[in-house]
Amino acid sequence: MIIVMKPGASEHAVATLLTRIENAGLKPLHMPGAERVVLGALGDERVLSELALDADPNVESVKPILAPYKLVSRELHPHDSIVAIGNASFGGGRFGLIAGPCAVENEAQLLASARAAKAAGARVLRAGAYKPRTSPYAFQGLGLDGLDLLEQVGRELGMPVVTEVIESGDVDVVARHADALQVGARNMQNFALLKAVGRAGKPVVLKRGMSARIEDLLLAAEYVLAAGNDQLILCERGIRTFETATRNTLELAAVPLLKARSHLPVIVDPSHGTGLRELVTPMSLAAAAAGADGLMVEVHVDPATALSDGPQSLYPDQMLSLGKQLDALLGVMGRAL
Amino acid sequence: MIIVMKPGASEHAVATLLTRIENAGLKPLHMPGAERVVLGALGDERVLSELALDADPNVESVKPILAPYKLVSRELHPHDSIVAIGNASFGGGRFGLIAGPCAVENEAQLLASARAAKAAGARVLRAGAYKPRTSPYAFQGLGLDGLDLLEQVGRELGMPVVTEVIESGDVDVVARHADALQVGARNMQNFALLKAVGRAGKPVVLKRGMSARIEDLLLAAEYVLAAGNDQLILCERGIRTFETATRNTLELAAVPLLKARSHLPVIVDPSHGTGLRELVTPMSLAAAAAGADGLMVEVHVDPATALSDGPQSLYPDQMLSLGKQLDALLGVMGRAL
Amino acid sequence: MIIVMKPGASEHAVATLLTRIENAGLKPLHMPGAERVVLGALGDERVLSELALDADPNVESVKPILAPYKLVSRELHPHDSIVAIGNASFGGGRFGLIAGPCAVENEAQLLASARAAKAAGARVLRAGAYKPRTSPYAFQGLGLDGLDLLEQVGRELGMPVVTEVIESGDVDVVARHADALQVGARNMQNFALLKAVGRAGKPVVLKRGMSARIEDLLLAAEYVLAAGNDQLILCERGIRTFETATRNTLELAAVPLLKARSHLPVIVDPSHGTGLRELVTPMSLAAAAAGADGLMVEVHVDPATALSDGPQSLYPDQMLSLGKQLDALLGVMGRAL
Amino acid sequence: MIIVMKPGASEHAVATLLTRIENAGLKPLHMPGAERVVLGALGDERVLSELALDADPNVESVKPILAPYKLVSRELHPHDSIVAIGNASFGGGRFGLIAGPCAVENEAQLLASARAAKAAGARVLRAGAYKPRTSPYAFQGLGLDGLDLLEQVGRELGMPVVTEVIESGDVDVVARHADALQVGARNMQNFALLKAVGRAGKPVVLKRGMSARIEDLLLAAEYVLAAGNDQLILCERGIRTFETATRNTLELAAVPLLKARSHLPVIVDPSHGTGLRELVTPMSLAAAAAGADGLMVEVHVDPATALSDGPQSLYPDQMLSLGKQLDALLGVMGRAL
Repeated sequence: MIIVMKPGASEHAVATLLTRIENAGLKPLHMPGAERVVLGALGDERVLSELALDADPNVESVKPILAPYKLVSRELHPHDSIVAIGNASFGGGRFGLIAGPCAVENEAQLLASARAAKAAGARVLRAGAYKPRTSPYAFQGLGLDGLDLLEQVGRELGMPVVTEVIESGDVDVVARHADALQVGARNMQNFALLKAVGRAGKPVVLKRGMSARIEDLLLAAEYVLAAGNDQLILCERGIRTFETATRNTLELAAVPLLKARSHLPVIVDPSHGTGLRELVTPMSLAAAAAGADGLMVEVHVDPATALSDGPQSLYPDQMLSLGKQLDALLGVMGRAL
Repeated sequence: MIIVMKPGASEHAVATLLTRIENAGLKPLHMPGAERVVLGALGDERVLSELALDADPNVESVKPILAPYKLVSRELHPHDSIVAIGNASFGGGRFGLIAGPCAVENEAQLLASARAAKAAGARVLRAGAYKPRTSPYAFQGLGLDGLDLLEQVGRELGMPVVTEVIESGDVDVVARHADALQVGARNMQNFALLKAVGRAGKPVVLKRGMSARIEDLLLAAEYVLAAGNDQLILCERGIRTFETATRNTLELAAVPLLKARSHLPVIVDPSHGTGLRELVTPMSLAAAAAGADGLMVEVHVDPATALSDGPQSLYPDQMLSLGKQLDALLGVMGRAL
Repeated sequence: MIIVMKPGASEHAVATLLTRIENAGLKPLHMPGAERVVLGALGDERVLSELALDADPNVESVKPILAPYKLVSRELHPHDSIVAIGNASFGGGRFGLIAGPCAVENEAQLLASARAAKAAGARVLRAGAYKPRTSPYAFQGLGLDGLDLLEQVGRELGMPVVTEVIESGDVDVVARHADALQVGARNMQNFALLKAVGRAGKPVVLKRGMSARIEDLLLAAEYVLAAGNDQLILCERGIRTFETATRNTLELAAVPLLKARSHLPVIVDPSHGTGLRELVTPMSLAAAAAGADGLMVEVHVDPATALSDGPQSLYPDQMLSLGKQLDALLGVMGRAL
Repeated sequence: MIIVMKPGASEHAVATLLTRIENAGLKPLHMPGAERVVLGALGDERVLSELALDADPNVESVKPILAPYKLVSRELHPHDSIVAIGNASFGGGRFGLIAGPCAVENEAQLLASARAAKAAGARVLRAGAYKPRTSPYAFQGLGLDGLDLLEQVGRELGMPVVTEVIESGDVDVVARHADALQVGARNMQNFALLKAVGRAGKPVVLKRGMSARIEDLLLAAEYVLAAGNDQLILCERGIRTFETATRNTLELAAVPLLKARSHLPVIVDPSHGTGLRELVTPMSLAAAAAGADGLMVEVHVDPATALSDGPQSLYPDQMLSLGKQLDALLGVMGRAL
């Protein structure tokens, strides 16, 4: 950690900080310059975040050297982690396609949509029973009934299922019905929920929050691993920017960036990432080309009547076509759907 | 609601949509133009959000006419609401100052910081017992012990207290100790929590999320009012932008905007809104000049050793000076601290 | 165009607006609703932008139906345009690779870097003689000498050249030396420059501004076409967002979006779009998979000593590898490098 | 400057960098840590930006210690600069109100609007003759005729005038007609223009670009001062964010931030900063409370028929009321309109 003192900071102020650094068990460094005094603190600087040296009125800025996350970091864990949801694998060269409708609406809708997903090559079925919605007047999901339907349809088609959990009190019941737990973008910094899914013993798909930097996402993942669960898949799903032509701005550069910094698998959700059906196929192919370990795609048997996210849901024939294009593209990269 | 059809949409597609609009109980309108067919739907268009007409592949875009929120809207409730926390009032011309340390650390720290707040004119004491922190390795708050200390210090100084609640399971216990419940920026779209505080029977301070548009904040507030609680104060605390010189970008235009659209009181948190102690006083004065109904300011007896948010906490003498400047500025606007 | 009146707008105010719409040669529509009066204006609504109806204090909002651009729109020009720079073609299924160093530094550097570009399959050489730099103390380019060197090296290798022009007074001289003119991100709304390159008779590469929405980029392109030049290539190169891990946020969804709305070719600059050498190859492949008509990539014979943009410049061997991977990926999509 | 090496960087790579630092005339520092080697370079680190050490593949990141601007910095120039436009002063405790219509439309419109500005206390008249417009089909300004009218009306009312110049070739003619030159947000990084106004011998109002960080604005100002002109006023006018309820997001925290880092006067443009007439008065008062050295406000004799920016232009009576409120608020802060 590098500590830049304000111009005119007294020798006493400098000495006080050097002592605090030493008392925290780090090696202090003193670098007086022409315009600023700069201090260094060598060692495990995460200890220093407790000291909050930037709160000192004599300090101009604090510049960390090391990343603030550990367990998710590739530095301490150089090899790719492989995470399994049922018999589908993600990471370490394995590519997994997750697909299904935004929400469980009824058995017929779910079954038909799931069949479309499976026909296109999806290994895992997704559908929401608890739906976080911006408006209190929008469809909020079927809840427990939705979980039952999802489990039933997953079994019928032989597909493991992943579904969102939106508060810590629901983790146990969702974990009993689903093969994997999804934490949504709006809950990426719901730390109580992160700790709860960290203790649930099921794989977790963690979506990036709309205002989360790469580092924030990795720190959110660190909560889950620190709670004892390393079966975690990171999911890029777009951030909020000034662009209004799309629902979110899908940042595909997050894929190679996350994979460089972390050993965890990284998938992409091009449906929420764009909000527009027409963009889902090109962005799916782009994500695969960028090195993603999988995709999570919304498909609906009749998007025009979907209770949520219809505009971004693929029609079954579009899903089928996507599967074929993906398979060809992955093939040329030495991978397979 | 205005529905713009894609170029080349068939007459059949148009007729189908007109029928769906009529079946939903609205008055359909057909406006064929030279380049596009445009449809209208007159009536309570919130019904139409269930129809999700933008999911229809023949529809280019859907443009709502009415705001998607009702209970928080000034249209149905033209007069300012006044919300009381203990004996402090917010809204309808009343200005309230909330101040205190970021977190409860121990009794001495809390008591000294609260005294500094009170001396400066603060009517309500703030301090966190449950701290949502980006890193799992950062101080997470004292929890129940913190609530006890907060209640005790508030009583000792005769100040009502507000504190953050971070999950729905904690709402009851926090409501027993505090005079008002704060929902933080990271939980603004934790809908389970919004519903729970809506049923808690205590005033709520709802902070704007880092990626929340004005409309998102009002819809989050609508959740609380729809659950039966209209004692709600909106709080602008900055959004996340590309600017890195400050922790967040405080959008003071949100104050008159929110007050134009809603009857609810609006306060400003310049501490989180800037992240820098030096900016807290000018932004506090600016917020008051912009018409805010109050402020929430962090003050700490010794910011340099604070366990959280030290860099943005005022020193006691700075807090005192802020109180005096605020009082003078409010006076010229016909208001008082 | 749809005009939403404020609640309580008088009949007189409505009648005045209807008359203004009719006087502008459009067909007025009157749609009184329960909560709002809504007006329509059918016809070429671009006429109405002159009327600026949203400035009327009785108007709540104005919602356009038609896009504000014409010449660049795919509606009036349904087939892909193909733009040639020398013997390289962009659009209509043709993919072109543009590569070279950020800046012309000297003959040896330029020649070696250009050879690396050519060896990897680049058809067009890029390098800057006029460099817009954030700091006045940074290298500002070789100017005329740079143009001479660029032209000479391009001829020697048989590669057409593209280079940036940064003000309208330089357009003629740059057009004499280069085969295509580049308008950079910082100048995307330098309208004097757009008009000048519109009259220059050379193909133009127009880069998206850091704060430009898709519509802003298309309107900037409209300036060039309106000035008489339809040989224009759009270039996505990243926007500015809150993410700090990359230099810009490359929005690859812009590729299919721009191609849906416009007939113009769309290329991607992954070098500026990420700022990080390690991300250039995955983002190049992703851009091709998303349907881009080409790429503009920075390569330098010795990036560690480059006078500008070294951190995002590929080494020659990385460039060669990128060419091979691109060729394979394009092949599976029925295209070729 | 602090240079963080990648994990595993060789001793040879470290030694090479230390030599480059020393050869550049700085004092090198070597700080080997447990997880990273960190290097320091003490002295005028601006020299090092030429070395571009972050382009070295062994370097993980480079962290500057000193600000990259000099002439605009408060460190070397601790006292407030005062800039005069005619007989109006900005900075050092003096507050100046600049007002007028967005564009010169005709003599009657300009004269009536200017009278409204003057009646409200404005000391300087603003109006545009060259208008940068997003669409090529929008009103582009009267050009030379507009300059003539502006000069004539300014003389008639005894008000100095400021107007925008949009390319370097126009600087001379605009400088002959106007008392001060405005560089607009879209041209904040038009470096040729910055250099030209730096040589023009007239005061400059430099507006912040829509995607400019505080540091970018100060570096743009540095271009002007480096070209020999220190009569420069910085103008905060809003940045582009995800918020769509306003035209831009006015960042009032920029006022105290800029004044802490620079000796230059800082004014605020609440008209472009919000885009909504209703927000102009509260944001003007907020800007004054935040410590701004002046305002630039749009007023029009008949906003409903304005050729540009009508929605954000004040009516004359609103302008008058703003003047009175500003005067009262400034009075309580020991200043005057």
